[in-house]
Amino acid sequence: MTESPRRTPTGAAVFQPRITSAITEAVLDELAAHGYVRLSMEAVAKRAKVGKSALYRRWPSKQDMVIAVLSEFSVPLADVPDAGSLREDLLATLRAVHDWLTHPRLATILPDLTAEAGRNPALAEAIRTTIGEPRRALGTVTLRRAVERGELPADLDLELALDLLAAPVYWRLHVRHATLEPDYFERLVGHVIRALDAPSAPAHRPHTG
Amino acid sequence: MTESPRRTPTGAAVFQPRITSAITEAVLDELAAHGYVRLSMEAVAKRAKVGKSALYRRWPSKQDMVIAVLSEFSVPLADVPDAGSLREDLLATLRAVHDWLTHPRLATILPDLTAEAGRNPALAEAIRTTIGEPRRALGTVTLRRAVERGELPADLDLELALDLLAAPVYWRLHVRHATLEPDYFERLVGHVIRALDAPSAPAHRPHTG
Repeated sequence: MTESPRRTPTGAAVFQPRITSAITEAVLDELAAHGYVRLSMEAVAKRAKVGKSALYRRWPSKQDMVIAVLSEFSVPLADVPDAGSLREDLLATLRAVHDWLTHPRLATILPDLTAEAGRNPALAEAIRTTIGEPRRALGTVTLRRAVERGELPADLDLELALDLLAAPVYWRLHVRHATLEPDYFERLVGHVIRALDAPSAPAHRPHTG
Repeated sequence: MTESPRRTPTGAAVFQPRITSAITEAVLDELAAHGYVRLSMEAVAKRAKVGKSALYRRWPSKQDMVIAVLSEFSVPLADVPDAGSLREDLLATLRAVHDWLTHPRLATILPDLTAEAGRNPALAEAIRTTIGEPRRALGTVTLRRAVERGELPADLDLELALDLLAAPVYWRLHVRHATLEPDYFERLVGHVIRALDAPSAPAHRPHTG
């Protein structure tokens, strides 16, 4: 495949979606097969059957390309529709985290990228701003709905709440490499709701079990 | 350094502690510098200034060597002395998890090994049985003390409790690569105590904040 970017009147390039899609798939395949450090622009171009220029017209560097592809895949998965109650919203959130972390290629890519980010502060920062923070903003929407419904205190510890909804699932799947029991999400949601229902909060109400 | 293993009357080899210690340091250095996949017995032997036979006399394989060294380092760190109350015990547990995860070489080694374990089920199983499970057994001792003191219900969800004490710290440090605020452990302990204080439990008591 080849393409010449068309130019809009304002000068921005317009890219062919079919080529962008082929590149995206090639990036995910290469990341899953070889990891971030060994991924090369050449291998992505070859796998996508495009010239390297098609990559560089879209992204200035390997890091920008990888982060853009992973962000486009990861962020929409954190958008959980209103299920009507805190408990159902949190169950849907945990299922969405699970689907993200167990997606065939992502299950390999994320732990690798995470390890590399520990050695590469620029990569860590890019992951934080384009994947972590947008996903957390969507999680915040879910928790704010519960505050508006009076199901959670207005002064809940949002940062910790978001950690409690993702960390145990990551820990089980990608650190302990252990299975999730069929009732795992139910149990975790029960614990998280008790954890967040702080007694000092104005909206505090008795436990309902 | 060279050594000939002395044999005890029962036939078990006795190794020189000074050499074992040099090998242990070399394994940690090589793991931190090059990761599990690229670690070679040759490089460890060279760094420790011993012959490869000194390694193979102790461990039959690279995996056994790495797991033994990491287990010896990691398991004792999970042994938290009785601090007199659930809150103080959990704070000490979180500090111990933090010290483990941020130990200079371990902070690099653990995320790498974790990613590799995702591709290598035998390695994942060895980590689970020689590091994960012994650490969790020690965490269980801490939680059982609280049950005996009447601070936690006897039917607490032990598996989830142990996850909640390690997962958020790992998530912050090694996945989000974010900082821990000075009051982070206090906040997390408050949340975990509320989470575990299940209302259906016989030992349930009103929240004390």
